[in-house]
Amino acid sequence: MSTNNGYAPGLEGIVAAETELSHVDGLKGELIIAGFPLARLAANATFEEAVFLLWNGRLPTQIELADLKQELAELRPLPIATVDLLHEATKARTNPMDALRMAAATLDLGSGSADSLTTAKMIVARVATIVATTHRLRQGEEPVAPDPALSHAANFLFMLTGEAPSDARVRGLETYLNTVVDHGLNASTFAARVIVATQSDLVSAITGAIGALKGPLHGGAPGPALDTVFEIGRADRAEAVLQAKLDAGERLMGFGHRVYKVRDPRAEVLGAAAEQMFRADGDMALYELAKSVEETAVRLLAVHKPGRNLQTNVEFYTALLLHGLGLDTDIFTPTFAIGRTAGWLAHCFEQMKYGRLIRPQSRYTGVMDRVWVPIGQR
Amino acid sequence: MSTNNGYAPGLEGIVAAETELSHVDGLKGELIIAGFPLARLAANATFEEAVFLLWNGRLPTQIELADLKQELAELRPLPIATVDLLHEATKARTNPMDALRMAAATLDLGSGSADSLTTAKMIVARVATIVATTHRLRQGEEPVAPDPALSHAANFLFMLTGEAPSDARVRGLETYLNTVVDHGLNASTFAARVIVATQSDLVSAITGAIGALKGPLHGGAPGPALDTVFEIGRADRAEAVLQAKLDAGERLMGFGHRVYKVRDPRAEVLGAAAEQMFRADGDMALYELAKSVEETAVRLLAVHKPGRNLQTNVEFYTALLLHGLGLDTDIFTPTFAIGRTAGWLAHCFEQMKYGRLIRPQSRYTGVMDRVWVPIGQR
Repeated sequence: MSTNNGYAPGLEGIVAAETELSHVDGLKGELIIAGFPLARLAANATFEEAVFLLWNGRLPTQIELADLKQELAELRPLPIATVDLLHEATKARTNPMDALRMAAATLDLGSGSADSLTTAKMIVARVATIVATTHRLRQGEEPVAPDPALSHAANFLFMLTGEAPSDARVRGLETYLNTVVDHGLNASTFAARVIVATQSDLVSAITGAIGALKGPLHGGAPGPALDTVFEIGRADRAEAVLQAKLDAGERLMGFGHRVYKVRDPRAEVLGAAAEQMFRADGDMALYELAKSVEETAVRLLAVHKPGRNLQTNVEFYTALLLHGLGLDTDIFTPTFAIGRTAGWLAHCFEQMKYGRLIRPQSRYTGVMDRVWVPIGQR
Repeated sequence: MSTNNGYAPGLEGIVAAETELSHVDGLKGELIIAGFPLARLAANATFEEAVFLLWNGRLPTQIELADLKQELAELRPLPIATVDLLHEATKARTNPMDALRMAAATLDLGSGSADSLTTAKMIVARVATIVATTHRLRQGEEPVAPDPALSHAANFLFMLTGEAPSDARVRGLETYLNTVVDHGLNASTFAARVIVATQSDLVSAITGAIGALKGPLHGGAPGPALDTVFEIGRADRAEAVLQAKLDAGERLMGFGHRVYKVRDPRAEVLGAAAEQMFRADGDMALYELAKSVEETAVRLLAVHKPGRNLQTNVEFYTALLLHGLGLDTDIFTPTFAIGRTAGWLAHCFEQMKYGRLIRPQSRYTGVMDRVWVPIGQR
């Protein structure tokens, strides 16, 4: 922690909360989610299990899991006013993150005095429906109603396409959602905690978090990471294209991370998930091209930026996996939000239990004792 | 600043931003707004002048002020989809702060790629229209379209009632809006800064701030402060009723403040504004009753809680002034938001100029290295 007489720019190094939800160790390249090393959780758990784990501190029993799936199924359809709003947002060519914020803000329409846990389930259930509905409307297609028999991840893919997804795709998406479900006190999670700490409500907190996630300094832009792969097109062109970019001083998208100095554990998990999914139900030529580009990029970066240890980051594999699932680039960040919503809500529960306002100070650097000059004399 | 190995619960004592917008000195009982002692600004400035001051660091010229008023007039009407949403919110008996959050989240519908300053003016203009529209709909009445010839404060009163307000009432509301326009790094302002610091947009930031303001630990509840006055009903009952409350260990609403230890400068300004307004165009019997209750309460508190120096706080005079303006208790906090929106946006501009993510850390207190137990074995 470094503060200048109490001033901590960007709050860097300041611990603003204690949490049992996740632990980010950038130096070791480790991410713990509610006690599980990420790799152990992400590939084993259904998304519903991850949600239950974060909200209860333990995995659900079979009955608890069945109950949660049933409740999510019932809560998944959107209020009609929310759907109407998404139609308007589409007409106005609103980008999907703004549409998600608008729709999320309306999610308690008519839900009356539901308790926090029911509200949280409703938010998790409906955020996915909002993203899928937005996508359908933007494609000029009718929304697809959720199928109560499908899991959360399967439902999202079903609502996007109208077709039941393969197990391999569901597993791929589930691994992605689990991988991004929580990540310490990132800016959107922090925004949710600041809002709910005033004893405001969960819909307000999640709406604020979505607004923060939208920012390019936070949610990032996984799209461009794959653009290079498409631009290269053939494995035998990778070295020449990447070397030219490095020589021109361009940054290679998809490599390096602000926090993780060794490796990004999420990249490893998503890389394995992408391989598994592409092998079972995907375009293996694209997968192999991406792997080839990645290996070349890491090798060239080690020469071009020695000592920096620039590894493939989470955005590269996110782009590969989500593209493989058939998702358009413009719903990558909204799909991130589908996973992170469970973490945001878990942090809200922690904050609500803690029961204290988050209220830092500002330092005044302006003038004092100004004289009032009437408008006629200005 | 006190931190336990970097942990600062509630971020108390941590300076998270430098600002030229306002300075709160709780020990001296001072509030500076962009260089002006509150009393000098609040009673002299129109709300439009306060907005310009916060966004530009100086008072506007006559031409600049006329331009701002003109722009606000043009931006004041709501998008149709926002009005439709407010109809739905009313049908669903949504409380006015939730309705404000829902509607605020939609404010950039169709505004395309407006620059930040135009977006900010649009938000200031429309937040007042949202609150007035919500109030009309909740009363079962048609919304009143804004009058382009009226100022921001006058328009709000006009849109609430359909009648042009007296100068005394406009001045009363304007003094109130100026008084609450900014107050350091309170929780809603901080939420707005956290959101916009990701390089997200102003609508997202203000929507998040509204969500934070809604919380009872922040926006407070000025309603109850006046309930005691109504309960007492006659000045000669004040002492007996208040003494009974104190003997029963009840807290007297409207007295004492977490930050201001001497006096709350806002209370002083609002007290004077209330007196002026009630004398010119109000129920003087109510005003005198309130003054009598206040004097009795302060006197009894000095005896009952010696050394605490419990003075009349901003909520007491807020309730008196807003009630005198004919506002219902349930739009007190939304009306607070009308004023504070200008401060939120000013902080967003500062944060955008600073260009740095606000990203504190969390400390993990959970278990490590959990073993995965398959669902069949749970």
